[in-house]
Amino acid sequence: MEFVKEVLIERFDRGGLERKSDMVVSEERVAFYLNGEKLLSVMCVPSDQDAHIIGFLLSEGVIENIRDVSSITIADNGLSVYIDAAISEKNRQNLFAEKTLTSGCCVGVTGNVEGKTICSFVDSDYRATIGRILEEAERFAEESPLFAATGCVHKASLVLESGEIFSAEDIGRHNAIDKALGRARLEGFDPSRSFLLSSGRLSMEMAMKCVMHRVPIVVSKAAVTLQGVRSALEYGVTLAGFARGGRVNVYSHSGRIIL
Amino acid sequence: MEFVKEVLIERFDRGGLERKSDMVVSEERVAFYLNGEKLLSVMCVPSDQDAHIIGFLLSEGVIENIRDVSSITIADNGLSVYIDAAISEKNRQNLFAEKTLTSGCCVGVTGNVEGKTICSFVDSDYRATIGRILEEAERFAEESPLFAATGCVHKASLVLESGEIFSAEDIGRHNAIDKALGRARLEGFDPSRSFLLSSGRLSMEMAMKCVMHRVPIVVSKAAVTLQGVRSALEYGVTLAGFARGGRVNVYSHSGRIIL
Repeated sequence: MEFVKEVLIERFDRGGLERKSDMVVSEERVAFYLNGEKLLSVMCVPSDQDAHIIGFLLSEGVIENIRDVSSITIADNGLSVYIDAAISEKNRQNLFAEKTLTSGCCVGVTGNVEGKTICSFVDSDYRATIGRILEEAERFAEESPLFAATGCVHKASLVLESGEIFSAEDIGRHNAIDKALGRARLEGFDPSRSFLLSSGRLSMEMAMKCVMHRVPIVVSKAAVTLQGVRSALEYGVTLAGFARGGRVNVYSHSGRIIL
Repeated sequence: MEFVKEVLIERFDRGGLERKSDMVVSEERVAFYLNGEKLLSVMCVPSDQDAHIIGFLLSEGVIENIRDVSSITIADNGLSVYIDAAISEKNRQNLFAEKTLTSGCCVGVTGNVEGKTICSFVDSDYRATIGRILEEAERFAEESPLFAATGCVHKASLVLESGEIFSAEDIGRHNAIDKALGRARLEGFDPSRSFLLSSGRLSMEMAMKCVMHRVPIVVSKAAVTLQGVRSALEYGVTLAGFARGGRVNVYSHSGRIIL
């Protein structure tokens, strides 16, 4: 199936592990160009690119009427989308009037890995037992007061080897992670011997947040993406998903998880 | 409980409706200031603001070391966070080097409702029966090929009164909606007599996408947020959540849903 890639994983439970394959969704950075000028890039599944740019620019009020669009071209193996349209310059400016990150959003460095040099490989020799990870993951899922009340938030917990746990909830999965990591750092703890639990999907940004804070292991009850796996492999993060029902799928650097 | 608000809803099933109350999470726009200059705003739950800004700026490499932070002040009833820190100007520039929207992200107009005049009230007199909405919502949940393969994507479908359905999947819930709406618009259809189905949570951006495309009704199997409800009320959108098990909670303008 298009946009789905097979990856090799190790599936751990308390009794051992098996090597098998898993399917992950492939997201790409797609660049949107308006009247020859680069507008922005979007991390997305590179399908329906013409509909995506039209829907987005109408959603944002940059294009007011579909009849103002003169052409749409998808190029660069689907990673560049060029649209020519009559626009109001005021509307185009609106798009970038204020920088607001909406729920579940992330910009900047961790969303822009390429060409940067500030990231280095996470080489922590910390190891966690599968028993400890599953135990904490189970407790993590049970204790989520805002989610219990509203069904509408994500949670993150940083579990340090020394036993301290820093947890936070937020509408955005990125925000919950930033809050939990930030609390640990504010209190003077070093996350280089820890694992991070998240309720949200693990895409590239989550792997890169781990790199920036030197967190060696990140575990989610949800899925991971292909770019999440690739950046975790490249930058030395142990990335694990689908931590449910006493099992967890490990997609990279599994040597840190021991029986 | 803090950050949770009680709202009045109508819970529909095929047999009728009951009026009751529901709890929704309250998100706010929190402004981050670095060394006296506004950096950006984040839609989030206004808790742990000091940890949030520290975690975010370390995640983004803007602050390299927690010891470079001299002060953090939370002001304006928690909606403004001021941090003073020694930073490298190069790192600060990195944050905005390229505008990349990560999975589940949205910037610009729909994330910046205040002060704009391009939005107008959705006054469509389209009505949909609860039977039709539940039937389409059940089919929507069954047919999701990328989700079935990977467990890692959102889906959106625009269901027109005339019977056409435009569907899309993407890692980001915003992207899936833009793609489905964009496809309908590209094919020349007017969404003003339609309902939109989404697998993702309905926050303010989703209500505003409906306003911009004149979609009168949006229905999710997931939760809604307080700002989602408020903007739907203000701009004339029928917002419905938790469409599961033959029931749906309607948070605004319920007159468009008929038995």
